[in-house]
Amino acid sequence: MVQRRGFTVFLTGLSGAGKSTIADVLIEALESSGRDVSVLDGDVVREMLSSGLTFSRADRDLNIRRIGWVAGEIVRHGGAVVVAAIAPYDEAREEARKLVDRYGTFVLVHVATSLEVAEQRDVKGLYARARAGTIGQFTGVSDVYELPSSPDVTVDGSVGTPADAAQQILDHLTAKGLLD
Amino acid sequence: MVQRRGFTVFLTGLSGAGKSTIADVLIEALESSGRDVSVLDGDVVREMLSSGLTFSRADRDLNIRRIGWVAGEIVRHGGAVVVAAIAPYDEAREEARKLVDRYGTFVLVHVATSLEVAEQRDVKGLYARARAGTIGQFTGVSDVYELPSSPDVTVDGSVGTPADAAQQILDHLTAKGLLD
Repeated sequence: MVQRRGFTVFLTGLSGAGKSTIADVLIEALESSGRDVSVLDGDVVREMLSSGLTFSRADRDLNIRRIGWVAGEIVRHGGAVVVAAIAPYDEAREEARKLVDRYGTFVLVHVATSLEVAEQRDVKGLYARARAGTIGQFTGVSDVYELPSSPDVTVDGSVGTPADAAQQILDHLTAKGLLD
Repeated sequence: MVQRRGFTVFLTGLSGAGKSTIADVLIEALESSGRDVSVLDGDVVREMLSSGLTFSRADRDLNIRRIGWVAGEIVRHGGAVVVAAIAPYDEAREEARKLVDRYGTFVLVHVATSLEVAEQRDVKGLYARARAGTIGQFTGVSDVYELPSSPDVTVDGSVGTPADAAQQILDHLTAKGLLD
């Protein structure tokens, strides 16, 4: 039986950049085309994979390594995965790439919404709390976000709609021969 | 594109029961038949999924829930998974079953080697250490192993070879229409 080539779309960017919104549109488009998708976003990961981890660098790295490993095992069987995670460290993202590339294709999408725009939105009120000092180690405010050294796609959540960004990713997947 | 039905074979039993040995034979047979397998056994799980967890009941439950969730996501895409874990609590095993059954078939295999035989082998020297009190909460010695309430297959690692046990599992998978 011929197996489809599995792939993982990994959206990285600041809190409030629009990762989950873009992921939702992307997932809906993939499922409409008959492709089931495993979603590894903040909530499910925190609940199912990484409960108990902190926001220290070591724990963040472990979190991304776990996500990468699970994504790799799914891709191995021809599955499609969408990850939405801040994932501020380039080395951890590239380690996730390696764990997936063994078995399929890893597509790193930088949701490059600026800090100003993300902070202005502040949908969850987290930036306000970070500025007030009631949240420590908050990416973009009191902790670093390393720009991706080798993104496969870059979208800007402050320009165009989430649907535009999702289409840009779908176009990339099509160009790579990953969609039917 | 037609997708194969995914399945998870979950081997539970005491330390030294022969779970990993049976799993190795089973995995080789599945791979020889052209079926790729994700292996979630003690080592890889401790390294990739559950580093930092203890052997408390809460952490053991969390470990099995994580395994069940990851297995479910793999099975969702038609993949095959083999788990080898002591998994002493029936409720946690049945929770893993639910997480997999949403997407495919869960096959619980009780490797019912007796404590006497497992302890006599004591390949890793763990029983000796548990009896000496230098390991706490050791299943079968200082911690409970709840018998599976609804095993799909029961094999006895002290009767017959690991190949016999693996064949019993393959026969079950064939009868369920899970192998080509």
